[in-house]
Amino acid sequence: MDDLARLVAIEEIKTLKSRYFHALDRKNMTAYAATFTDDAEVDVRGVMSTEEQGETLAGFDEKAVLVGGKAMAELVATTMGDIKTVHYGYMPQIEIMSETTAKGMWGLEDRLWYPEGAPHRFFHGFGHYHETYRKTADGWRIASMRITRLRILME
Amino acid sequence: MDDLARLVAIEEIKTLKSRYFHALDRKNMTAYAATFTDDAEVDVRGVMSTEEQGETLAGFDEKAVLVGGKAMAELVATTMGDIKTVHYGYMPQIEIMSETTAKGMWGLEDRLWYPEGAPHRFFHGFGHYHETYRKTADGWRIASMRITRLRILME
Amino acid sequence: MDDLARLVAIEEIKTLKSRYFHALDRKNMTAYAATFTDDAEVDVRGVMSTEEQGETLAGFDEKAVLVGGKAMAELVATTMGDIKTVHYGYMPQIEIMSETTAKGMWGLEDRLWYPEGAPHRFFHGFGHYHETYRKTADGWRIASMRITRLRILME
Repeated sequence: MDDLARLVAIEEIKTLKSRYFHALDRKNMTAYAATFTDDAEVDVRGVMSTEEQGETLAGFDEKAVLVGGKAMAELVATTMGDIKTVHYGYMPQIEIMSETTAKGMWGLEDRLWYPEGAPHRFFHGFGHYHETYRKTADGWRIASMRITRLRILME
Repeated sequence: MDDLARLVAIEEIKTLKSRYFHALDRKNMTAYAATFTDDAEVDVRGVMSTEEQGETLAGFDEKAVLVGGKAMAELVATTMGDIKTVHYGYMPQIEIMSETTAKGMWGLEDRLWYPEGAPHRFFHGFGHYHETYRKTADGWRIASMRITRLRILME
Repeated sequence: MDDLARLVAIEEIKTLKSRYFHALDRKNMTAYAATFTDDAEVDVRGVMSTEEQGETLAGFDEKAVLVGGKAMAELVATTMGDIKTVHYGYMPQIEIMSETTAKGMWGLEDRLWYPEGAPHRFFHGFGHYHETYRKTADGWRIASMRITRLRILME
């Protein structure tokens, strides 16, 4: 691929990830599902824990690996439907592997405010997204996602 | 427009928005005013409130719509002149509509630390900027701005 | 330089800075050192203080100016080796000066969680990075860095 096509693809993937966050926090589950390929593999293990802080900060049904945007949208609707969330990504490294494949890493910060009566009031996490992307007939989509954590705070 | 011209415009608009934030938080009101067109329409309704949290978190003189960078700079100088602020934008979606028009959305987080004696100590907000841009003889400028909120915290 | 070469350089510098943050927070000191030129000048004065808040928020051995990525990696290993950190940059302004020189400014937010028994529990800072870059045989590297602060909070 030439430089121009590569830069166009990088900007499209950044925009895809922006749509991902906007849909997630505005709870637009149709738009959220559409940011993934139908066969996207999302490893949600470790989403709510860190190595040294262990697996005790649950409140999230961590299945091993989910497949497809629809399954991800259902997970979000079920576990975060009544939780006010603010997620964001920053400082991406996007690498275009071919005309239809790419990988990327993003910094991640997420805040979850739980409703009255929940065991916790506030979750505040830091870490990284590790992703791959595939260009479909409808443009670039997230083909796989895994999250690693730097730090988690709970109140 | 071809891809290259479009990417150049996107990068220029990202730089414009960076100048906006730097001028706002460093209280450089001349530079801040210069990030808007003279006829920019800025809808500041909803800046300090969220739908479910209501309009009670004031402390900000919310006029309906301000016109022009100079009016915006005056509003900022009046309402935030002695407030230490840190604003930032993230995860933009910039769409170039023509050689001289564009629109964009940004994630927004803002922190305001009020001076001693103020009714509040600290404001912490989350939301999105919805903007349009116009290319003038002096480069891209913000032509309209509206803010929607995800969450506001006050201490 | 033509527009395409300039955009390629800007994206490479953004990726360089992403590698900087990832290496810093994951404590990969070899990768961290490699983001600087061997003669990089890093002015660490003011890193842990603000003008109005004074120089009293130390806990950091502030030498005047460090030279080279190796010296920076040693400073980080010494002062932050057992501190959990999350740094990030946002809203860059990258200016390409020639085929091998550039300058940039980034918003900065950093969080440091100190270990048990330290004088402080948590550092939270806001400010800007002011940097220059040089293109070496191994790609773009940070050639100088200086930090100015907007706000520092300590607990």
